[in-house]
Amino acid sequence: MVYFDNAATSFPKPEIVYDSIMTAMKEYGANPGRSGHKMALKLSRGIYDTREMMSKLFNVSNPMNVIMTFNATEGLNIGLKGILKAGDHVITTSMEHNSVLRPLRYLKKFGIEHTIVQADNMGRINPIDIKKAIKSNTKLIMSTHISNLTGTIMPIGEIGKIAKDHGILYMVDGSQSAGVYDIDIQKLNIDLLAFPGHKGLLGPQGTGALCIREGIELESYIQGGTGSASHSLDQPDILPDKFESGTENGPGIIGLGAGIKYILDRGMDNIRQHEENLTKHFIDEASKIDGIKMYGPLNIKEQAAVVALNIKDADSSEVSYILDQEYDIAVRPGLHCAPLAHETIGTLDQGAVRFSFGAFNTHEEIDYCIKALKDIAKEV
Amino acid sequence: MVYFDNAATSFPKPEIVYDSIMTAMKEYGANPGRSGHKMALKLSRGIYDTREMMSKLFNVSNPMNVIMTFNATEGLNIGLKGILKAGDHVITTSMEHNSVLRPLRYLKKFGIEHTIVQADNMGRINPIDIKKAIKSNTKLIMSTHISNLTGTIMPIGEIGKIAKDHGILYMVDGSQSAGVYDIDIQKLNIDLLAFPGHKGLLGPQGTGALCIREGIELESYIQGGTGSASHSLDQPDILPDKFESGTENGPGIIGLGAGIKYILDRGMDNIRQHEENLTKHFIDEASKIDGIKMYGPLNIKEQAAVVALNIKDADSSEVSYILDQEYDIAVRPGLHCAPLAHETIGTLDQGAVRFSFGAFNTHEEIDYCIKALKDIAKEV
Repeated sequence: MVYFDNAATSFPKPEIVYDSIMTAMKEYGANPGRSGHKMALKLSRGIYDTREMMSKLFNVSNPMNVIMTFNATEGLNIGLKGILKAGDHVITTSMEHNSVLRPLRYLKKFGIEHTIVQADNMGRINPIDIKKAIKSNTKLIMSTHISNLTGTIMPIGEIGKIAKDHGILYMVDGSQSAGVYDIDIQKLNIDLLAFPGHKGLLGPQGTGALCIREGIELESYIQGGTGSASHSLDQPDILPDKFESGTENGPGIIGLGAGIKYILDRGMDNIRQHEENLTKHFIDEASKIDGIKMYGPLNIKEQAAVVALNIKDADSSEVSYILDQEYDIAVRPGLHCAPLAHETIGTLDQGAVRFSFGAFNTHEEIDYCIKALKDIAKEV
Repeated sequence: MVYFDNAATSFPKPEIVYDSIMTAMKEYGANPGRSGHKMALKLSRGIYDTREMMSKLFNVSNPMNVIMTFNATEGLNIGLKGILKAGDHVITTSMEHNSVLRPLRYLKKFGIEHTIVQADNMGRINPIDIKKAIKSNTKLIMSTHISNLTGTIMPIGEIGKIAKDHGILYMVDGSQSAGVYDIDIQKLNIDLLAFPGHKGLLGPQGTGALCIREGIELESYIQGGTGSASHSLDQPDILPDKFESGTENGPGIIGLGAGIKYILDRGMDNIRQHEENLTKHFIDEASKIDGIKMYGPLNIKEQAAVVALNIKDADSSEVSYILDQEYDIAVRPGLHCAPLAHETIGTLDQGAVRFSFGAFNTHEEIDYCIKALKDIAKEV
């Protein structure tokens, strides 16, 4: 089987990830942060280690400002709802995922307005358009780092600078970039960074995080037991407890830590270069096939390891189905939870077949897939 | 090592749980409900199987009304915040966990008032007191099924009847009961049931569910991508999608399904009886030790496999520390995230040492622990 659906979740995970999850479950699968016995303490320490690794990876000044979430969507909801109040304005882009667009649509009911900055037909955002959208009540700029549809890399450094210059907060959705692209939240002026643990960071599903820049105040979101200040009926105000109520995904977080260790050992730059090579090769070869229409910048300086395409007028689901059934190649068709991005590139009706490459894909798999696409392009 | 901390998280899990998680991760660890390829479909189907097993276990009329959450706390927050609006009144009890008390305290700021019905000093709630607390604006009664501190079993059938008779919704926190005690939400008139997957249901951490009775309308809580109605910027209104945004803990949910299968194979009644036997034996023997003060009804008809105690005036943390370090027995000391329950039984200062037994504990472990308690009672 050839797995080209890494933008949905990375597969496979490094062996060390599987092994460390199993070891945590079987040898110290207690409740972290609740009891004081050896097993519980070992799991708590392991969670702290993951927190610390993430704080280093993203240059968060204090590991306690790394909030463990269960996926990126939770982190985005905590961030958006914790920052925005009635009367606030937020700027976002047409390339966002529904994990951003749907909370913003929901918040409209509570008097929080938003402006959606339109990308060009390759999914590129012009920072000047962001700047133009700023109003006196703009509280937050919210953008993805990399489009989950076209792979377009957004100019987050320039947007961060605009936000900083105007005293506006900046939140980034790192769903397609965390673990593969450098994200230094201090250098890039990012105030809030949400991401999943199960994509580029190579951890298991059920993990993610929200990094909060020192000094940013967020309203509490989910309240509950934190194993701290247990005498108090009020949610504790300290981080990370304020946003980590209830039992965490302990073994999952251990697995996420193992994924990060794997990345650091192999070198994030090496993994990125590997993915860039695969992507370039795929784009080069696919562009030679008659009838294939590819989207995005199609240039690895501006595009991550995500390539969306269509074959003639064929329904994207049909093409994906053929790839799966006849060639054992796993890709994703349809709308990719990003309706405005499809509108932007003109694929709202047809959808798009998304190929997303990961740390364990090979040059040979790309060649095999290109052959399959050639066959299909003749047939449909 | 003797593990008596099952009320925090059950340990160990059945082998089938570990195995099925690993198989899901290694063989079909795709993103469920997102893509249409074989691996993704297999994981989606597995999640549906777990949903269906839970719907049967709790007699939920439609598997789609079983919402997958990442822990019980999330389910409680979705339920409370989805039901309660400004001007509403909610009745709860002094035996609740902070996962209930803290959201209710938070909701006070938004004009939602609550009455806390006081339990007696064994943690027992008199349903008449619940009835007396009903006001014209009472929208919801919220109670735990089993106290996480004293193990006291609450009269949920009687409370459910009161709620139904008065046209009030009833939500139950099944954190200490799901998977061990029968919970038929239709027979018991439960409208919302939240529980974790990693305690009595023997699944992994990072899992849980909220069962919603047919016809109950809840406001959406976390919005995001659902893999459904992707063209729409509005959160879909269908269940379970409305409350399952972002990537689920796919392999974790497969593991939870395996935990439920284990329970059904061994027999939930058999497991409960096993736990009752252990609890009875522990209570009988511990009550003979000079200097030990136990809390709760101390009668297995009224108390689940959770026993809180103190030895003379010794700090509960000190006793737990000795049990851990000198006897390798894992228990939980302190306040157990239930401050009003400690006030109720008079242990707010001392805390309590909690022993909680599970499906894999043995009579011999109880005997060993009783010996340890005898030694410690002489020393402190």
